[in-house]
Amino acid sequence: MKLINDYSELIENEIAGISFPNEPKNLYDPLSYFLALGGKRMRPLLTILSGELFGEKKENLMPAAIAIELFHNFSLIHDDIMDAAPLRRGKATVHEKWNSNSAILSGDVLLVKAYQLLSHYDAHKLSALFLVFNKTAIEVCEGQQLDMDFENRMEVSEQEYLTMIQLKTAVLLACALQFGAIISNASEENRKNVYDFGLHLGLAFQIQDDILDLYGDPSKVGKQVGGDVICNKKTLLSIVARSRATDTERQELDFLLNEVNIEQKVLKTRSIYDNLNVKAFCEETMKKHHELAFSAFNKIKTPNSKENIKALCNFLFFRDF
Amino acid sequence: MKLINDYSELIENEIAGISFPNEPKNLYDPLSYFLALGGKRMRPLLTILSGELFGEKKENLMPAAIAIELFHNFSLIHDDIMDAAPLRRGKATVHEKWNSNSAILSGDVLLVKAYQLLSHYDAHKLSALFLVFNKTAIEVCEGQQLDMDFENRMEVSEQEYLTMIQLKTAVLLACALQFGAIISNASEENRKNVYDFGLHLGLAFQIQDDILDLYGDPSKVGKQVGGDVICNKKTLLSIVARSRATDTERQELDFLLNEVNIEQKVLKTRSIYDNLNVKAFCEETMKKHHELAFSAFNKIKTPNSKENIKALCNFLFFRDF
Repeated sequence: MKLINDYSELIENEIAGISFPNEPKNLYDPLSYFLALGGKRMRPLLTILSGELFGEKKENLMPAAIAIELFHNFSLIHDDIMDAAPLRRGKATVHEKWNSNSAILSGDVLLVKAYQLLSHYDAHKLSALFLVFNKTAIEVCEGQQLDMDFENRMEVSEQEYLTMIQLKTAVLLACALQFGAIISNASEENRKNVYDFGLHLGLAFQIQDDILDLYGDPSKVGKQVGGDVICNKKTLLSIVARSRATDTERQELDFLLNEVNIEQKVLKTRSIYDNLNVKAFCEETMKKHHELAFSAFNKIKTPNSKENIKALCNFLFFRDF
Repeated sequence: MKLINDYSELIENEIAGISFPNEPKNLYDPLSYFLALGGKRMRPLLTILSGELFGEKKENLMPAAIAIELFHNFSLIHDDIMDAAPLRRGKATVHEKWNSNSAILSGDVLLVKAYQLLSHYDAHKLSALFLVFNKTAIEVCEGQQLDMDFENRMEVSEQEYLTMIQLKTAVLLACALQFGAIISNASEENRKNVYDFGLHLGLAFQIQDDILDLYGDPSKVGKQVGGDVICNKKTLLSIVARSRATDTERQELDFLLNEVNIEQKVLKTRSIYDNLNVKAFCEETMKKHHELAFSAFNKIKTPNSKENIKALCNFLFFRDF
């Protein structure tokens, strides 16, 4: 997709152009390092696509697009500490390469930098951007806390899990899209619909991620099949499986949590999931949110063509199984 | 001072009235706990005193005053993790009572909550508040990083140390005062002078803190005399001492860093400082910033009496030796 490549390059250049002070080195070097690790830059793409949908110029959308990306990177740096993750995009995480203190503090600075980028907008737009951004930032923290809490619980309901991924992932995509609508002076109704579009897109995307982890084509997914099963991560699959399992199956699933042969662990877990029709059930939920996303999308009123952003969002978020 | 007590009570009530959601408990309970630990609430007091100086009502100043206090508490929660501090105001720190992850994440939320409180102001004031707040927030992080960096260095110059305490402590007091001036629509010149007043007040205050740690009256200071010497903390005293010491004295000071008899350590270190006239030298620097503070203060133009805030700032920040 040439358009995506062109836009991604613009965003990448913008991020590469962010200059941090030279000192204190232990504060700013981690940020240059982390931002250069790359990523799909989905969120800034959404802000730009959404703003263009309402007739705004890319250059006016860029500061907010980058603010969202900086916020996302702040949350990744802090999440990596909390999850004790050694790697991010195949490279050492900030707390591994420097230390936790530098990761805490450089994350803090990145959050403030995100706010600072928003101050490019005139006072009126700033208030609206600020309102949705503050709400979203708090929700993302709540989502991360719920995710950590769930690790220590045996039983998590499907609804609790969906709330968690909504907070941790979906609201930021919704916020990124709404940023574009605010900057381009879109109507309240359009702002709401573009937000709902992002919210359900995010939910569908995260559920797809859960499904692909176990059922994806390894050559396409680009990571170890069953990674979530191996580290006993709660996903929609595991939660649905537990809720549908008989007592015997639940005992088997519990037993498999401690299985050391990881190949056997993945195979046997998947076999129980298959018996319970877990994949089809999760695909239904995913499809529901995909439909809700495009139902909100269809309500958006704009004189501009909606085909590009529609195709791009499907391309960005949904992969072949 | 009755006025201070009345104002402090108002601020304390306002903070006690902040209600956090019930869930996630591990995110919000640490915040209720930490904010209830109290403190002198100097920063919100400064915002209110400054705003009143320019004729603004307390209730209009309160959201910004509380925003500054929340920011201060965010930075304390994160600093406590970095400093591995077990206690804050005599009670367990957040990372001790919960864990580092909860302390990171609840600190993050508190920073966002500070921004959220600022959104009470109309768009025009918001832009100005935002500008100084973002700049200050970044500076405070830089100050904390420098402070940590200095721990690992033998030689720190007096100028480097003053830059560090300016960033870590003084700019937030300056920002708190400028918040009051912005909300009360004070002129650019008044905003600048009130900021400079706070900046030099903060520097003088921190230098006083360094001096009192070793030379204060234990019954008035309320903590162990020589605490900074005992934990080899860099202070203006220790930096000035090293820069004025002969080679022999510097060797003695180095030797004392590892002295295990803490009574002897404090006594001998102080005796070297006394020979070098360190206290008088630091008092000179403190006096210089106190004078610079009140020179900026005297340039502030307002039809209202300046006596109250003058007396209150002296009362808040300067104690008998």
